[in-house]
Amino acid sequence: MLLEKINSPEDIKKLSLEELPALCSEIREYMIACCSVNPGHLGASLGTVELSVALHYVYDTPQDKLIWDVGHQAYAHKILTGRREAFRNNRKQGGISGFPKREESPHDAFGAGHSSTSISAALGMAIAAEKQQRNEHVIAIIGDGAIGGGMAFEGLNHAGSLRTDLLVILNDNQISIDKNTGALHNYLLRISLSRTYNRIKSNLWNKMSAGIQRITHRIFHSTKMAMLKGGTLFESLGFRYFGLVNGHDVCQLVKTLQRLKEIDGPKLLHISTQKGKGYEPAEKNQVVWHAPGAFDPETGKRLTPKIKADRYQDVFGETLLAMARKNPDIVGITPAMLSGSSLNIMQRVFPDRVFDVGIAEQHAVTFSAGLAANGLLPFCNIYSSFMQRAYDCVIHDVALQNLKVIFCLDRAGLVGEDGATHQGAYDLAAFRPIPNLTLMAPMDEIELKDMMHAACEPKYGPTIIRYPRGNTQGHPWRETPLSPIPLGKARCLEAGRNTRTTILSLGTIGNMATDALNELKNIGANEIPAHYDMRFLKPLDTELLDQIANNFDRIITIEDGSQIGGLHGAVCEYLHSIDYKGHIEGIGIPDKFIEQGTVIQQFAACNLTKEHLLSLIK
Amino acid sequence: MLLEKINSPEDIKKLSLEELPALCSEIREYMIACCSVNPGHLGASLGTVELSVALHYVYDTPQDKLIWDVGHQAYAHKILTGRREAFRNNRKQGGISGFPKREESPHDAFGAGHSSTSISAALGMAIAAEKQQRNEHVIAIIGDGAIGGGMAFEGLNHAGSLRTDLLVILNDNQISIDKNTGALHNYLLRISLSRTYNRIKSNLWNKMSAGIQRITHRIFHSTKMAMLKGGTLFESLGFRYFGLVNGHDVCQLVKTLQRLKEIDGPKLLHISTQKGKGYEPAEKNQVVWHAPGAFDPETGKRLTPKIKADRYQDVFGETLLAMARKNPDIVGITPAMLSGSSLNIMQRVFPDRVFDVGIAEQHAVTFSAGLAANGLLPFCNIYSSFMQRAYDCVIHDVALQNLKVIFCLDRAGLVGEDGATHQGAYDLAAFRPIPNLTLMAPMDEIELKDMMHAACEPKYGPTIIRYPRGNTQGHPWRETPLSPIPLGKARCLEAGRNTRTTILSLGTIGNMATDALNELKNIGANEIPAHYDMRFLKPLDTELLDQIANNFDRIITIEDGSQIGGLHGAVCEYLHSIDYKGHIEGIGIPDKFIEQGTVIQQFAACNLTKEHLLSLIK
Repeated sequence: MLLEKINSPEDIKKLSLEELPALCSEIREYMIACCSVNPGHLGASLGTVELSVALHYVYDTPQDKLIWDVGHQAYAHKILTGRREAFRNNRKQGGISGFPKREESPHDAFGAGHSSTSISAALGMAIAAEKQQRNEHVIAIIGDGAIGGGMAFEGLNHAGSLRTDLLVILNDNQISIDKNTGALHNYLLRISLSRTYNRIKSNLWNKMSAGIQRITHRIFHSTKMAMLKGGTLFESLGFRYFGLVNGHDVCQLVKTLQRLKEIDGPKLLHISTQKGKGYEPAEKNQVVWHAPGAFDPETGKRLTPKIKADRYQDVFGETLLAMARKNPDIVGITPAMLSGSSLNIMQRVFPDRVFDVGIAEQHAVTFSAGLAANGLLPFCNIYSSFMQRAYDCVIHDVALQNLKVIFCLDRAGLVGEDGATHQGAYDLAAFRPIPNLTLMAPMDEIELKDMMHAACEPKYGPTIIRYPRGNTQGHPWRETPLSPIPLGKARCLEAGRNTRTTILSLGTIGNMATDALNELKNIGANEIPAHYDMRFLKPLDTELLDQIANNFDRIITIEDGSQIGGLHGAVCEYLHSIDYKGHIEGIGIPDKFIEQGTVIQQFAACNLTKEHLLSLIK
Repeated sequence: MLLEKINSPEDIKKLSLEELPALCSEIREYMIACCSVNPGHLGASLGTVELSVALHYVYDTPQDKLIWDVGHQAYAHKILTGRREAFRNNRKQGGISGFPKREESPHDAFGAGHSSTSISAALGMAIAAEKQQRNEHVIAIIGDGAIGGGMAFEGLNHAGSLRTDLLVILNDNQISIDKNTGALHNYLLRISLSRTYNRIKSNLWNKMSAGIQRITHRIFHSTKMAMLKGGTLFESLGFRYFGLVNGHDVCQLVKTLQRLKEIDGPKLLHISTQKGKGYEPAEKNQVVWHAPGAFDPETGKRLTPKIKADRYQDVFGETLLAMARKNPDIVGITPAMLSGSSLNIMQRVFPDRVFDVGIAEQHAVTFSAGLAANGLLPFCNIYSSFMQRAYDCVIHDVALQNLKVIFCLDRAGLVGEDGATHQGAYDLAAFRPIPNLTLMAPMDEIELKDMMHAACEPKYGPTIIRYPRGNTQGHPWRETPLSPIPLGKARCLEAGRNTRTTILSLGTIGNMATDALNELKNIGANEIPAHYDMRFLKPLDTELLDQIANNFDRIITIEDGSQIGGLHGAVCEYLHSIDYKGHIEGIGIPDKFIEQGTVIQQFAACNLTKEHLLSLIK
């Protein structure tokens, strides 16, 4: 066993080149074994085993810097850099993060989680090393999906105009989380086809008949194909292009990297890998095995519970499809989260009315604005934390022009194992100050369906509906008839009994308050606080607040967003304006980044629990 | 006179092709005359006169859609689409906007102000037309600076993978507001050199000696030059490339556009123009004449007042240079606002330590994070409203990793004539919920200098300092010795007299409060409210608020940011947590977009005036 002797990158360098393939096999086996019981992003990391080994064989971290874009493909890197055993607690509370993290290891040069940041960070680090005259190699490793993000282009554009030493490794597996899209993807595909063609040609050409030769030539040797030799696009941007190299031939990778180490300036190495490589089930269904959950490593059978509640994303997906059947103007937009958002439900029926624009949140929003400006009704689905990428587009292109785009923000609130980078904590506070927007959060799946319908009304203007990752509350939402959601109106869930306290909740966290009140009722408590589902953060139901101010001397706000500036902030601001003299307290996500763990652990870390609420009530 | 007959685009079509050059001359003259007394973005719009005429000669707006990126180059378009006389009130309160604006005219298909949005919007509009089976032509007009923004690349990447009819016109004047930068710029420059070379070659080749011929050939005919024929980069991205066309030959433009109208799918027309074209002073100094202020049209003498206070941007620029002299780790970063931020002051002395990364706010922030992660101390200067573009990068790359980047946000608050798209209204509210950040706003230039020094201390963490456009308060800041700015501490400006009211201000708007209190003192008022310059929005000076809560029963917060979620929000949230029973009211930017006008008019529109404050005090 080689892997058990690897406690740091130095140990890899003690191996001979010939031993590296065996090390790769062991890493792969270990990774599969760990991820089968402790789920993670297996597919991407299986694809980068050879690359990780080769990089650590050739370069010396932490002096040299490896910057993994997105970072979910860095499991082998983690295993090789002193975290082999810790990897068993990957993505767990108190364990290691599923992404590179500076405070976790000096070998993690730059943290990630979101996409397309690596080239910018790497260039910064390379220039800092240059200025301080340290001879460091800086390497950004970026996938073919992530390099399509605009920010990656900004990084290439800057780096390509300088002479600073920088290696960008384009890890091309021709898939994002879903099937990759975009012109750049097509371009990369043509490069790889042209290489394949050249290989086929030299091997098989002479065996073909003249007719087949002619047809083959015509297909592959168009002008576009001809111009690809040498990665012209990247060379246009000032990078020296090297490729296409087989990313699963660890010895060839080592030799290539050793040669590249001697070449100065900005350069791009294009390697071809396969997501899920070396594990047959993962190779066969790359979308599912991006993050497969627990599974039986022998059979590849996924161990997800058989009977399962609907997820919020499915409520979005099915509802949108139903709405799209009735309204031909409805279109769906996602930046590379087709299955993650369940927009694929509509896509299967109306492929021409669903746009997966790739990892491009800014474009997704302004593209939606363009669709709306010319007569369609776009539903643009973006994960809450990724929506941070398009903050200006929402302000400048949508809200300012009052264009009717309906944003559905999935993964709002606490997201669990993905941890700090992915928490949907800031959407409420960030969008509340923006004029013209309507901000809603459903308490359950029935409200989500109702809100999606209500949002189509013109008076709602540009609208944001935010809802969490995971399972619904288990209501029969499909059968429940539609109810109106009056603009800016909360709903009363509990009028209160013998109480001066009222609870105002926004979103699904309101169910925690319902549970708490039910518990009080069950134990026969004399005093039962009132409880309102606010539904809207904007416009705020100030009429209700006026009444509450008159009748209650204590208000508890509950939200699964930042405690700063969101519902609590809105309520405080308004109640001060009417000189409310009672007591207001808020529970929400505190002013710190919440690390990985289960959602339940994260709620506990934020005091967003029934127990805490009950203690406040008492 | 042709122009006086042009009241709509139909009137242009009545002219013969041969009359168009004369029309262009008249437009240019009119534009110069208007802008000489009513300042605007003259340079860019002088460069697009022929393009605007040609577009309206060939296409039929409002059915066809012209989408001007950034939009400050659209003056001729405005003049030609029914706003000839209104143009005299360009950028004035109640007048027309300096940018395209949907509510202003049906000919303004999509609003702008910020850069790099046009391709996304155009693609959305083109797809909407396609889906609704309307035969519309959609044209995005984008500069060579703006096309370097990541979002433009995202738009190209998506459009290039579809068959939707779309024309992108790349208006290449080889200048951003400052000198353009980046690999793409170099690429475009090579195309244009290669065209020039080909022209020179055919004209002069035979007149050269053999030796000169050989050298010329060697310089221009390198591999890189050779591969440029045909705009390979854009063709790689799925666009058909047409160019390079002289953008000042209106007849050639008309003919080219007429031909392109017949060609389906995504296509890019590369035209060469000159910023300031047709007005000699503007041609000669394109940076100054980007927005020259008032001038004498005969002599080109700029009529800016001779004696002038320093601007905040200069305080930033000079202070940073002074700091950089002492600390070799300090570097400066700007996304294409080298002169606008006054970072050029440091650049002149330390050209290697200042990075103009082009229009690329996201890259600017994460590049800064990379610099910080590897040992430098970056000062990243971004206009407040443009910082909205990099919201996620600040969260994900800087704050989460607690990296020491110091952001200086110029143009915070109300910005005047640029209007709604450029207001720096949301920075305070948007960044307050983000953990680890320190948020400061100086009340005057002395504080700005002090804050820039204080921010270097490690305990300040990643820091944002925001300050306004325009002139300082006129203090002798250069001579004033440095004072410490204790972390999270406000300063008392006026302890108050016979009063239960205290004013809490953040930033330069605090001077308005000082003026108001001085007026009260001058008239011998019995009661003088207390006044504190908060200095920090985060960490908030809660010790001070505790004292105030004990001693005052009325608090007035003043900020030149959104009234929602900023200082007022922070104060309300905290004072509720300590059960303050007094009255709090806030003045700030209300919940609407503030249109163009002078800064004074905009302050008045927001009730951010001495008079309003005095009326509140009474």
